This record gives sequence, structure tokens and C-alpha cells, in this order.
Amino acid sequence: MGGYAKKGILDRLAQGPVIGDGGFVFALEKRGYVKAGPWTPEVNIEHPQAVLQLHREFLRAGSDVMQAFTFYASDDKLENRGNEAQQKYSGAAINKAGCDLAKDVASEGDALVLGGICQTPSYLSGLGKDAVQNEFRKQISVFVENGVDFLLCEYFEHIEEMEWAIEVCKETSLPVAASMCIGPEGDLHNVSTGQCAVRMAKAGADIVGINCHFDPDTSLKGMALMKVALAEAGLKPYLMVQPLAFHTPDAGKQGFIDLPEFPFALEPRICTRWDMHKYARDAFNMGVRYIGGCCGFEPYHIRAVAEELAAERGKVPRGSEKHDPWGGGLMMHTKPWVRARAHRSYWESLKPSSGQPYSAALSQPDGWGVTAGNKLLEQQKEVTPGSGPTTIGDCNGSVSARNN
Amino acid sequence: MGGYAKKGILDRLAQGPVIGDGGFVFALEKRGYVKAGPWTPEVNIEHPQAVLQLHREFLRAGSDVMQAFTFYASDDKLENRGNEAQQKYSGAAINKAGCDLAKDVASEGDALVLGGICQTPSYLSGLGKDAVQNEFRKQISVFVENGVDFLLCEYFEHIEEMEWAIEVCKETSLPVAASMCIGPEGDLHNVSTGQCAVRMAKAGADIVGINCHFDPDTSLKGMALMKVALAEAGLKPYLMVQPLAFHTPDAGKQGFIDLPEFPFALEPRICTRWDMHKYARDAFNMGVRYIGGCCGFEPYHIRAVAEELAAERGKVPRGSEKHDPWGGGLMMHTKPWVRARAHRSYWESLKPSSGQPYSAALSQPDGWGVTAGNKLLEQQKEVTPGSGPTTIGDCNGSVSARNN
Amino acid sequence: MGGYAKKGILDRLAQGPVIGDGGFVFALEKRGYVKAGPWTPEVNIEHPQAVLQLHREFLRAGSDVMQAFTFYASDDKLENRGNEAQQKYSGAAINKAGCDLAKDVASEGDALVLGGICQTPSYLSGLGKDAVQNEFRKQISVFVENGVDFLLCEYFEHIEEMEWAIEVCKETSLPVAASMCIGPEGDLHNVSTGQCAVRMAKAGADIVGINCHFDPDTSLKGMALMKVALAEAGLKPYLMVQPLAFHTPDAGKQGFIDLPEFPFALEPRICTRWDMHKYARDAFNMGVRYIGGCCGFEPYHIRAVAEELAAERGKVPRGSEKHDPWGGGLMMHTKPWVRARAHRSYWESLKPSSGQPYSAALSQPDGWGVTAGNKLLEQQKEVTPGSGPTTIGDCNGSVSARNN
Amino acid sequence: MGGYAKKGILDRLAQGPVIGDGGFVFALEKRGYVKAGPWTPEVNIEHPQAVLQLHREFLRAGSDVMQAFTFYASDDKLENRGNEAQQKYSGAAINKAGCDLAKDVASEGDALVLGGICQTPSYLSGLGKDAVQNEFRKQISVFVENGVDFLLCEYFEHIEEMEWAIEVCKETSLPVAASMCIGPEGDLHNVSTGQCAVRMAKAGADIVGINCHFDPDTSLKGMALMKVALAEAGLKPYLMVQPLAFHTPDAGKQGFIDLPEFPFALEPRICTRWDMHKYARDAFNMGVRYIGGCCGFEPYHIRAVAEELAAERGKVPRGSEKHDPWGGGLMMHTKPWVRARAHRSYWESLKPSSGQPYSAALSQPDGWGVTAGNKLLEQQKEVTPGSGPTTIGDCNGSVSARNN
Repeated sequence: MGGYAKKGILDRLAQGPVIGDGGFVFALEKRGYVKAGPWTPEVNIEHPQAVLQLHREFLRAGSDVMQAFTFYASDDKLENRGNEAQQKYSGAAINKAGCDLAKDVASEGDALVLGGICQTPSYLSGLGKDAVQNEFRKQISVFVENGVDFLLCEYFEHIEEMEWAIEVCKETSLPVAASMCIGPEGDLHNVSTGQCAVRMAKAGADIVGINCHFDPDTSLKGMALMKVALAEAGLKPYLMVQPLAFHTPDAGKQGFIDLPEFPFALEPRICTRWDMHKYARDAFNMGVRYIGGCCGFEPYHIRAVAEELAAERGKVPRGSEKHDPWGGGLMMHTKPWVRARAHRSYWESLKPSSGQPYSAALSQPDGWGVTAGNKLLEQQKEVTPGSGPTTIGDCNGSVSARNN
Repeated sequence: MGGYAKKGILDRLAQGPVIGDGGFVFALEKRGYVKAGPWTPEVNIEHPQAVLQLHREFLRAGSDVMQAFTFYASDDKLENRGNEAQQKYSGAAINKAGCDLAKDVASEGDALVLGGICQTPSYLSGLGKDAVQNEFRKQISVFVENGVDFLLCEYFEHIEEMEWAIEVCKETSLPVAASMCIGPEGDLHNVSTGQCAVRMAKAGADIVGINCHFDPDTSLKGMALMKVALAEAGLKPYLMVQPLAFHTPDAGKQGFIDLPEFPFALEPRICTRWDMHKYARDAFNMGVRYIGGCCGFEPYHIRAVAEELAAERGKVPRGSEKHDPWGGGLMMHTKPWVRARAHRSYWESLKPSSGQPYSAALSQPDGWGVTAGNKLLEQQKEVTPGSGPTTIGDCNGSVSARNN
Repeated sequence: MGGYAKKGILDRLAQGPVIGDGGFVFALEKRGYVKAGPWTPEVNIEHPQAVLQLHREFLRAGSDVMQAFTFYASDDKLENRGNEAQQKYSGAAINKAGCDLAKDVASEGDALVLGGICQTPSYLSGLGKDAVQNEFRKQISVFVENGVDFLLCEYFEHIEEMEWAIEVCKETSLPVAASMCIGPEGDLHNVSTGQCAVRMAKAGADIVGINCHFDPDTSLKGMALMKVALAEAGLKPYLMVQPLAFHTPDAGKQGFIDLPEFPFALEPRICTRWDMHKYARDAFNMGVRYIGGCCGFEPYHIRAVAEELAAERGKVPRGSEKHDPWGGGLMMHTKPWVRARAHRSYWESLKPSSGQPYSAALSQPDGWGVTAGNKLLEQQKEVTPGSGPTTIGDCNGSVSARNN
Repeated sequence: MGGYAKKGILDRLAQGPVIGDGGFVFALEKRGYVKAGPWTPEVNIEHPQAVLQLHREFLRAGSDVMQAFTFYASDDKLENRGNEAQQKYSGAAINKAGCDLAKDVASEGDALVLGGICQTPSYLSGLGKDAVQNEFRKQISVFVENGVDFLLCEYFEHIEEMEWAIEVCKETSLPVAASMCIGPEGDLHNVSTGQCAVRMAKAGADIVGINCHFDPDTSLKGMALMKVALAEAGLKPYLMVQPLAFHTPDAGKQGFIDLPEFPFALEPRICTRWDMHKYARDAFNMGVRYIGGCCGFEPYHIRAVAEELAAERGKVPRGSEKHDPWGGGLMMHTKPWVRARAHRSYWESLKPSSGQPYSAALSQPDGWGVTAGNKLLEQQKEVTPGSGPTTIGDCNGSVSARNN
């Protein structure tokens, strides 16, 4: 990164909104590089070009931060329940590769590099603070060695494990962000959303908030509770939010994981770019300054956030060269009735139909009412037995050639 | 491609199903490289890596054909209604760049390269056969010079223009495929769907069918009509279908263009991978042998087609290394109630909810009942006047910097 | 009715629209007097006041015809599958009581009295023409003795049985109306809807059409087919339609019987009064002159028909003294935003929400694909064995007292 | 009623559940006797047979109480905004006629007679306590003279006016019930639902609860809040609930009045009988002992309540002679796939479809955010000017004959 000093995350937040990036796990699953179920990021080593390309798309869409793709890259997760990733690559190698890719693309713009950790199977299995923090420390040390600009503890369902994570991050001198994957109902051990914010801030996080598990509206309801509780406690961290790009008004406390559509039939819930304009404006108006996305956020969703906040940021994203605001490009469409849609009021007021009349609007979430500490949630290296492997293509032969 | 001869498209179709690729226009619009409205493919020159990456994802998902991204790359379209693409690049240059990228990736597998043309503004504006065929001929000559394996005339709403296109293709010695963007109601000049098939075959197309504009179910209803009409006429071309990945039961004759959600709020209509299993099976059972996708098809949709037809093809796609069939990867999920979804019957019977209770299931299409020959549809170089440019971000200042 | 002669049905139809009444079976089931399942009209004897009141409500709503409540009052039906009605009352007694009640109320206005017969278990069980016509003849003789003004054969699923019914009616000198419970797909033995109309007219029906089984829109699609076929055959009977007041766009050939919601969860499908304005106008514009309703039609639905056709009939129904047109009564509401709804355009354009976000818009019909002649449809006197009686109130004791 | 003493309401409540009746206003509007807008009950005089019949249907359905139809029968309402009822009949005459009809039918069973009052235009217009109580006192005196068994103050949106009403009732020696038309959000002057309950009890009501404005689920949420607040205050009145038979999950604080479908397009929201089984069970389990219905409740809804509580009451309603529990009557249906629905599990798990794919599940309520004290809500005798009378039937002539 050479001879000039990039402005750090806290300075940037002090100046105006900072835009995060979108959801690598889901985007790369659809592109063919991440397996749903284990959700681990060995693609950093296996197909680095695919990761580079996605980073570039988010940079072009307006992301100010390139988060290294290290989700679930703790050693205990890489070998959980039959995941073979660990047999091929160490967690350290995956984390390092992720940092390299993020740094490469960040240097193509003026973006910061972020290293993140998340909740561990060790916590869920009740292995205790030392074991859990050991997993975190292995990842953090790779981030520090590779010169990330700041750290993020994200996707924690239990405030206790989050505090352990922040504690490890604070062993470094880097700024620390912290976001839990909770909604307005609090963490899975019944700590309120507001108290979670207070405890993250007290543990030392400079930036606190919510990510994943809920849609923009629900996540912002959670942020409102955090804002009030922080004010009451006299704490002033920056606020961050990185919600899903799926509509989840029917989700229970545990979010979209429990919806019957998770993870392979969430399509009808995908937010439009116009939903993201509203989200960005609502978040900014609430005082949130780190505004990004999680699962389901594709580059065009982030571009919508950046376009909505163009005045506040004093710039439009590079990718807007291919996107006139509010559907303006449709002025070049051949059909006059499509050209008639090239207006803000049209897209803002449209309630999009699903084309799926045999589906209901809402689902009843699953959720078995268990959380960390419950035997059902203890994890293991072995693949879960019982249901043998389903054969592909409903064929009864032994199709195994992979020679496309 | 060196010293060995790839098996041609007609031989492959004689042996078993051939899998097409997905929708470059919509996928690259979401990734930030194509502008909705003009929909032209200058990205081949501007950001070749983005195109390469998408080709690779489809190859990995199981596509047997790499179609050069040359949609709407006719000179009359590149300058239509204020499109600036033509001022920077010639149609020939864009088409050549598209061929190069497709060939590069095709050589990484055993895929064929396809060059395609589609309907022109010249036809819509009533400029006559010579003018229209001249546009086609310029593109076809680039394809031939760059050694594509076969030709495709796709996305035609009028059988007359389609016949002109096939006539130009037949000036070469390459196999010719032809697919119209129509449903069961026929072309926009009221030629029946069955008659369109007969006329495409009589004009010399080796492969005939339908692409774009309608969802898999509706497109297959159109294919059924084509199959009957061809049989009655004693014609035996191969059948191909490349539908939308959007549910469109409510679309009128002109397809999804007329739905109020087109093109920026189609999200709730996106098909799941399980919809694509059903589509692939239905298409194969009907006797369709060229099975691919159009707008909305992402790599994971094509992978689902390839997994459904794994037994028939004797192989699974390379990308299935990250996708156990029928949700099998969920056996590695941490939550037991999500592991309980790792089964075919679960996903096959699920009717996914939209999470959007203020939206209806179906929309009333727009559509002004006009078609080629109507003054309203004559095209022009100038941008349509009237509604001045909308400013980004609802800001009232002059934000124009593009310096992200 | 004294010394003047009422104008007959055919003269009335020659002059302008005649309005039928609504659905006694469903209305009286909800009021507590008819049992769903057998659906037989012993209430005429058991609770005559309840029947009188419903007749009066329809008269007041604008009905020009009082149809005696004799649906399914054939002896073979009154004893079918464990129905106890036959043990208490003869079919003749029930039919006579029905005539008396209809006549009483008809004389309170200027209404005609109608006697109707419908399809029989004997036909379904394959007992042959003589047995079936014997059932009809027993009912018709009661109607003639009691001086009804005209006859109706309605609710037939098979044109063959309908022809047998018309043949019996023609043994009298009364005008004969005939309507089948079919939609645009024809009768259950695959005779087209148009051919059914032609055969009814050729059998001697003065008025032909469709009743029950489908919503207004679908029924009118069937009527359109009848109209064309009659014209082609050079036949000119009057047209009649008496559809459901339930939305059934998803019903299969056999209509609402096959919908999963039949008969106890049809509520979300109930048509509004505004749906009935549109229905009445569409029916009239198509040339239908006998416009009424069947299952689901309550008095306010018929009133809406009468209000829509007020100009054509030269009068408004008596009941409109309590119903200002197009919501006008809301001008007297206390809340100003409800007063703002007192306009035609408001109610005409409203798409009413269901308040039921866990329900889909459409259902998949049941229907086992069997029809008359199939062993599964042979009827019997005995109650169907197998599933023992369900106890009321989920109680495990023996609650049987009926002493409210 | 002669020489024996009926058991009073409080004794009955002490013994077990008491079942109320349903919604006269809406039921009689659909039958043609009440005008939507003013909603006043002059039908007691104009068409007593219609009222008698509806009372009888509810008695037969299991109602333990015959509530005289005196809703909105205060003199200030009978002349509000152009209502002509007052010019023809005094409030006293209407109230007396209502008592007579209720008493007649009550004596046919073992039912109690109830006299009710509700909120007044005088309160909304800010005329003060004396004026308002004067309206109440005129009605109550009629009730006492006519020997009703107990009194009810129902349909109050403001706890202040409710207290004034209870105060007037307490001038008599009759038991007093009190229910507000509120949900969980409290009254329209922002008194919490729990506090409303406490204030009703403290004002002297023996029975307190909620009626109208919300569906069963939402009303029971309000009841739960009342129950807690009463317990905390050490008060022990009986609990009563009489909700709508319309699904209103989307209603705001002011209930179904504000839904765009009110009052003429609520059909898709109508509850099934199975919804009422669940409602009755939930209410009983919560400890509510007076369980009835309000607008939308038809006799079959009340019968479902009575059937659900058959064990607790030791009897089934008389009307169940025409209604085998849980669809059992379908065992007598002719079609085998309909007979297959004659089971509790079928109806309990069914989510009924609407057949209306162009409608959304939920609506955005109107509501202008005003309440008593706001000038917009002051009432007047004159009909609201401005929008002239809409003509019937969209005809441009002068159709006014009422001679059906």
C-alpha cells in the first residue's frame, strides 16, 4: 500500500457514512464455489479468481471496505460434521489467502481491509472460554500478520461468546467492530438487544451493531433498541448494520435459519434495489454510519445503497456508469410502456408480485427452541449418520464421474 | 484448439441432452457491467475479466455451450435512443471480443462456442429486409472469422425477421439454431407458435425452439405446440428451449417485458434450483434436447439442470463438488432442524413464501397492444426527450464525481 | 293471487332482464337448518319460518322468481348414505311444503314461482333412464299440482341425464329452463359446453344456461361458448346464468366441489357486492337475460345485481331503501376517512386483502378423475362405514344432550 | 315468563362458560334491513320478523343471551348526519321494540335478555358528561321498564365515556357488563388496555372485556393484557370477549374501521367455523367466561363456539342436529374425495386459499390519527355536503321507483 497512509475506519466514520460489502457466502454458493451446509471459505485457495471478481464487483458498487472472506474459517468449523476442508487446508492458510485477495482489490480503490471472526462450534458444544478464544486467536494472528486495517466480530448469537471474541481482538491495537446476528428479541440466552449493544461497547468495541439473520426493516428495529440502550448507558460507539437481502417479517427469534425456505428456496424473499434505497435512507436517518449487507446482498444491492447516499458521500459508485438512477436507463428501452417506467415514483410505489399463486405470503418458522448448552447442539467431526447420501438426478445407478 | 476435432452440436444432440448456459444480460447487470434499458454487451471490451468469470461459472455448472456475449450487438442497436456504446466501440469489435472470451473458456472444458444474433431496431422501425439482413451479416461474418462452432438466431418476436436471420446464417456452412421469444400465443403478428416452428425449420434451422419472455412452464407449453406442428408437417429439427428463471403465469402475449415488475423488481419471481430440476425433467421428457436458460438463469440454475440430467449425460457438473444433491450438504449444518431438510421430498414439496404480505401473487401486465409497423415502435438515435435526467440520491445538488 | 294473470317467465324475458334468487342450501346451512353433506331441504317442514324469511329477503333484494326450495328432494337422495330425512318425511311432502312457502312469498310481490329438479343418485349409480325419470316425475307432479309458474332442471353434470329431465318436464305444458353445473370445459362425459347448450335447446328447454360450480367469471366464459354454439346451430333459447358467489379461478373441470376448501372453508373466496355489479353488467352485455345466483349468493348479492340493472329494469329493489348505491350510506359514517369511501371509483378499484398471510391465493383441486359409470360413485342407503363418529368438542365423554 | 326464576348472568358465569350471540348489524345489513353508514336498528319496528328470525338462529346455535338489538339507538345517533330514522321513530320506541323481540325468543329457550348501550356522537362532539349520560339514561330506562336481565356497555373507544356509561347503569340494580372496542394498544386517548380493564372494574362493572374492532386472536391478546392488569390491581370481574369474525392482523389501533375493505369488501377476511373452534378454546383456556361474537359473526360461527365448548357446558346446541362435528356430515356426500374430508385433522390444518391472486394478504390501514376532541370528528344532524348522491346502476336517468 506504499507510501501514503489510508484514512482509518474511525476517521472515515467520523466524516460520513461508510458502505460495507455484501454476502460472499450466498453469492459464491450460487456461483458454484461454496457449499451450503458447512459454508466454509476454502474457495480462497481453490478458486481465487472467483473471490477476486466478487471483491471487485463490490468495490465497483461502492463498498468502502473489502472484508477478507474468512467466514467460518476457524479450525473447529473446518472439520465439523464431515467437512473435508480441514483435511486439505489449514485454517491459517485459508485466512491468509482471504487477506491477500481482499488486499489486492482494496488497493485498486481507496478501500480498507477488514478481518473478521464469527461464532464457533466450540462454544455451541460448551468447550469453554479458553478453547473458544484459542480458535479466535489463531485467526486474529493471521489478520495482524497480513496487515488488515481493522477487525470485526460478527455473526454471534450469544453475547457471552461475543465478549470473549472482542477480548481477543483487544489484544491487538486495531479498531474493533462487533455485530450480532440478532433482531429485536435479543440473543439466544435472552439478553435483550439493547443490553447486547451495551455489553459489546463495554467490552471495547468501537463500532457495534447487527448483521445477518433478519431483513433490513427488522434489523433496523433492533438497531433502534441498541441506540436507546447505548444512550441510556452513556456510551457512544459508532453504529453498524449489515442485514439480509431477504424479506423476513415472519422469522422468529433465530431469524431466517428457521424459515422453511432456508437456504435453498429463499428466492421469493429477495429484496429489490429499491428496497435497498429505503434501507440506506432509514439506516442513515437513524444515525447508523456503517451501512452494508450480509447474505443475499449482491453487488447491485450495495450499488443502490451507494446511490441513495451519493449526496452524503459526495460521490457515486464507479458502477453507476452502467446504472442511471431510479431506472433512468429505461429511457433507452425500445418499448414505450417500458420507457414510461423510468421514474422514481414508479419504482418506489410498486409492490412486486411473486407470480407464485400457490405460495403463501408468510411461513411458520421451524426452530426447536434449543440454544447453546443443549445437547442437541453439540457439534462433532463425524458426518451425521442416518440418512445415507442421496443420489444425484434421481438415478439408481452409480453416477460419480466429474468430468465436465 | 489444436489437433483434435471437437464433436459438433448436431452429433451431441443426437447422443443426448445438451445443456445451454444462462442469462448474461441480467447476471452482468446485477454484477454492475451491463446497463438495463439498452442492454448492450460492450463489457466484453470494458471488463473482459467479468465476462470470463461468468463463462467459467456456467462451464463449471455444466453448460456444454459457451455462447459469446453478443446480445443486441448490432450496430443499429448500439446507437439506439442515446446509447453511447457505438461512439466508443464498433459492433464488430464487441462481437470479436465476445468470441475471444467464449473461446478461451470453452477450451478449458469440452464446450462448443456459439455465436448469436437477435432482433433489430431496424426491423421494428420498418427499414426492410435489406437493411435488417445487413445488420445480421456484419455480425455473422465476425462469428465465422473467429471460428464459432454454430450459429443461433434468438430472441425474435416476429417470424418474418427470424426467417431473414436464418437466411443469412445459411450463407455459411455452420449448423443453425433458431429460437423465438414467444409463448403459446404465437408471434406478435399473430402467427401461431406451431407455425413459427414450421417456418423456422423450413427456413433451414437445424434446431428450433423458444427462449426468454416466459417461465419454464409457459415456455414448455409453447414447445408442446411446436412439437405437434412440426410432426404434422413431417419436419424433424432438434428442439431447444431456454426460458426465463422468473415465474410469469400472469404475463400476456408479450411476456415478462409487460409485467409491471420488469426489469427492476422481478426478484419475488425468481425460480429456485428445485424449479429447475422440474423444468429439466419436463423438457427432457417432452423430447427437447437443447436445454438451457435465458434472463434470470444464474450458474446454480444451470447446475440444477445438469444435476437433474446427470444419469442421461453420464456425468455430474464439476461445480457439484460444492453441491450435494437435493440439499444433502445440509447434513453438515450446525442446527438439527436444518439438517432435517437435507432431503429431496422436503424441497420438492415446499411452496416458498415471499415474506411480502402487501404484494399480490399476480400482476396485470402493461402492454399497449402495438407491434412492428406501429409508429410508436419506430426507433431513433436520439435519447427520448421529455423526462430530464433524474438526479442520484434524491439530492438537489450536482453530484457527478465518479471517483470511488 | 286472485283475479289477474301474472305475466309469465317467457314474456318477462322478452321484455328485459329477470333476476333469479340466491343459494338456499348454503345460506340455510349457515343459519343452522340444512346439513352439509346430504344437503336436503327437509327444513321446509321442520322450520318453515326460516325458509319464508329467506324467500322474503330475496324478494326484497330484487328477485323476480321465488324458486321453491326443493334441491335434492328426490326420494333416492333423501335416503342416500344414511340420510334420515326420508324416514321422517316423503319427498312429496317436502316438495309440497317448499311450493307453499315459495307461493306465499311470491304473492307478496309480483314474483313467479319456480319448481326445480336436479341430478339424482340413481343416475350416478347407473340405474338407467326409467329409474331416473321416475324420480323426476314424482317431483314434477307435485309442482304441477301446486301451480308453479315454470320448471327448472338445474345442477346436472351430465347432459344425458339433463335430457332425460327435460323430457319429463315437457310432459307438462309449463315453460322449461335448464342449466348445467359446468364450466367452459364441458360436462363430465366430455361433451363440450357448447354442445350441452345445443342439446338442452333441442330437448325442448326454453331457457338454457349454467348454474353453480364456478364463479361468475368462469361461468360467463362457459355462457360465451354456449352462445356461440347455439347461434351456429340456429337455436334461440333465452340464456340464464346462476353462478357461485365464490371465487374459483383454480377450480378444475368439476368446479368448487374439488377445491380443498369445499364446503367448510370457502369464506376467503366469497364475492363482494361490487363483484356482483360487474357480474350483472357482464352477463347482461353478453345477452344473458335470466341472471341469478347459486351457492354463496346472499340477499345482498342479489340486491347488487338488481341495483346494477336498475335502469334496464326501470326500478330499484325494495331493499335498496337500506342501501344507497356504491357505498353512499357511508356519507353518514362518523369517521371522515370512512365517509371518503362513499364513491363508486373507490369500491370498483379496490382489490380486497384477505388478512390471511399464511394462506395461498390458489389451491390445487382434489378430484379423483371419476364420473358416472365408475364404481366409486355408486351410491347406497347405508352410511359409509369406516371412520366412526367424531365426538363433539374434543371431549372424551358422551355428550349427547340437546337441550339448549 | 311466569313463576320460575331464571338463573342470572353472574350465577351462570360462576358455573361455566356463557355464550353470547353474534353481529346483528352486519348480518341484517346483508339480509337487507340495516343501512351501512348510520348502522341504526329501526328494523325492530320496520321488519320485526327479520329480527325475530335472527334471534332464533342464534338461540338455536347455542347463545345463552338474547341481546336486544339496540346498537346505536341513542337519539343523538338516530338523527346524525342525515339519518332519517329519528324522524319516523323515537329512540325509546326502537329500544322497546328491540326488548320485546329479544324477550320473545329468549322465552323459547332458557336464555337471558340483555340491554346494551354504546358510544355516542355527543361524546365525540365534546358535549360533556351530562349530555352524554342523558342519552344513556333514556335507553337504560327503557331496558329496566322492559325487564331485561342485565346491562351491557359495549363498543366504547374511550374509557372516559365508558365510565360515564357504567355510572348510569349502576343507578339500576342490574348486573353490568362492559366491553371496549379496543385491541392491545389501548383506548383512543392512549389509556392502556390493562388500565381500561381496571377502570371498568373500579367503575362497577361485574364483567369486563373487549368487543368488535379486531379479530379473535388480536382481541384475545388484548384480553391477556386486561387479565394481568386486573390481577395486579386485585380485581376479579368476570372476563368477556366478543370479537369480529374478520381476520384483522393488519389493523392499526382503531381496528377494522380503518382497513380499506371496511365495510363493503371484508369478505375475504371472514373467519371459518374452524377458526371459531380455536377461538373458543383459546378464550376458555385464558379464563374468559363470557364468549360471544360481534360484527361478522353469523349463527354458524356461534354454533362452532358452542360445539367446541360442548363438554364444558354439558350440552350441544339444538342447531347441531344439522351439523355433525368437524365436518362429519360429509360422510353422506356423494363424491368419495369429499367424504375423505370428514375429519377434524383435515379442517384444523387447512389454510384456506382466497381464489384472489390479484389481492395482497394485508392492507395498509387508513386512519387519520384523530380522536375525540378533534374538530374533524364533531358530528352534525345535516348530511355531509359535497359529494352529491350517486345514482344507482350507473344510469343517467332518474330511476327512483321502488315498486319491486
